[in-house]
Amino acid sequence: MAAATMTTNGLDRETIERIVREVVSAQGSPQSLAGQGAVGSRPADLVVSISARHVHLCDEHVETLFGAGHTLTPMKDLYQDGFFAAEETVMVLGPRRRSLPTVRVLGPTRSFSQVELAFTDSISLGLDIPIRHSGKIEGTPGCVLVGPRGVVQLNEGVIRAARHVHMNLACCQAYGVDNGDLMKLRVESAGNTVVFEDLLVRADEASKLEVHIDTDEGNACHLDQATRVELLKQADDECACHG
Amino acid sequence: MAAATMTTNGLDRETIERIVREVVSAQGSPQSLAGQGAVGSRPADLVVSISARHVHLCDEHVETLFGAGHTLTPMKDLYQDGFFAAEETVMVLGPRRRSLPTVRVLGPTRSFSQVELAFTDSISLGLDIPIRHSGKIEGTPGCVLVGPRGVVQLNEGVIRAARHVHMNLACCQAYGVDNGDLMKLRVESAGNTVVFEDLLVRADEASKLEVHIDTDEGNACHLDQATRVELLKQADDECACHG
Repeated sequence: MAAATMTTNGLDRETIERIVREVVSAQGSPQSLAGQGAVGSRPADLVVSISARHVHLCDEHVETLFGAGHTLTPMKDLYQDGFFAAEETVMVLGPRRRSLPTVRVLGPTRSFSQVELAFTDSISLGLDIPIRHSGKIEGTPGCVLVGPRGVVQLNEGVIRAARHVHMNLACCQAYGVDNGDLMKLRVESAGNTVVFEDLLVRADEASKLEVHIDTDEGNACHLDQATRVELLKQADDECACHG
Repeated sequence: MAAATMTTNGLDRETIERIVREVVSAQGSPQSLAGQGAVGSRPADLVVSISARHVHLCDEHVETLFGAGHTLTPMKDLYQDGFFAAEETVMVLGPRRRSLPTVRVLGPTRSFSQVELAFTDSISLGLDIPIRHSGKIEGTPGCVLVGPRGVVQLNEGVIRAARHVHMNLACCQAYGVDNGDLMKLRVESAGNTVVFEDLLVRADEASKLEVHIDTDEGNACHLDQATRVELLKQADDECACHG
């Protein structure tokens, strides 16, 4: 990996955690859990994946960080067709020289760069980051990205990505939801069941049905020990006889 | 603090996180959020607190770790009467020399020692820990505790504490629950609302109404930005017209 030499620490907590997360990231969705839609008529295959912290880059920043003419090298395909974890990683540098030394770049490139962190990551960086939908970065904190060949100053773009579910339009119809609606994800895990509300529907023609939560959310419900996952409309369990 | 000299790292991620959590721990419940019971007849004051990783010790282990005749020095009272964060900290050492260098001891002492970690902590230690109610440590992993004066080998006792709610018996009656029942906690937080199921009721004569979740759970719902917390019976939103 191009940026491996940036690692400055021994096998401390951060490194261990990073490795775990990178392996997770690299394997596409090994912590994914296949589950079932809420009722019989709904789509049967639901994949829930944990997104470890990562960076999206524009072409210009790829060249600044990794050298003129450089393009991202796919390392592992993600579950969604056309997307991949790249060989490339960058250091994310926050205020007061706090840093995350090795953050995975996901491809393909986008029209602007964006850093997606869990809340735990943002505490360690010393940044107060808002929850945003991918692409909505106006007014968010910036950071410095450090690559093997150069440095990029982002004036904005560091977010905690809002939990969301990708699906295609047929799937929207089956669930009775539209792009932009909110749903709920219930993760049943022994002694540890969690319902995540505010799950944004991101629908298009081609997406596979897949929920993305971050590492904090995955750890809160111990996703890899979950026995059942359910996708529900936001209002599904609010009924007249509630309370 | 007696064990401060055990810290071996600079201001890396772990240290920063530890400091943040210690401050949280030290202040009793600064991330606590006062909320309201679910319906009018229920208790009005609900405090939700994040328990950072911590250790409970028996008297014998206090002496082994901190010296003969040593007793814990209260640093800060916790929200529940009679309980405190101690000045003392220990290093928790897991397999393959992975460690958490400074874990707060809570007092008073107990009849046996127990280490309570979040799932993120356990990943960094390399331990696969079960979710257990406090005190139920049979068959759980052990670890080594390191203090300034000695070392203790625990053969068991490292757990992720099950999320729970303390309350007194009058409060139980108001909620219609008994000691040992399960409830739900709903934390409303902009774009980030979470319902934690499997919340164990720990009731006695004297406890104040207080929910304890761990750092992973607190980060998943961004507790310190929450606008409303609600305590519900486990079955409250399961009703005949559900679905």
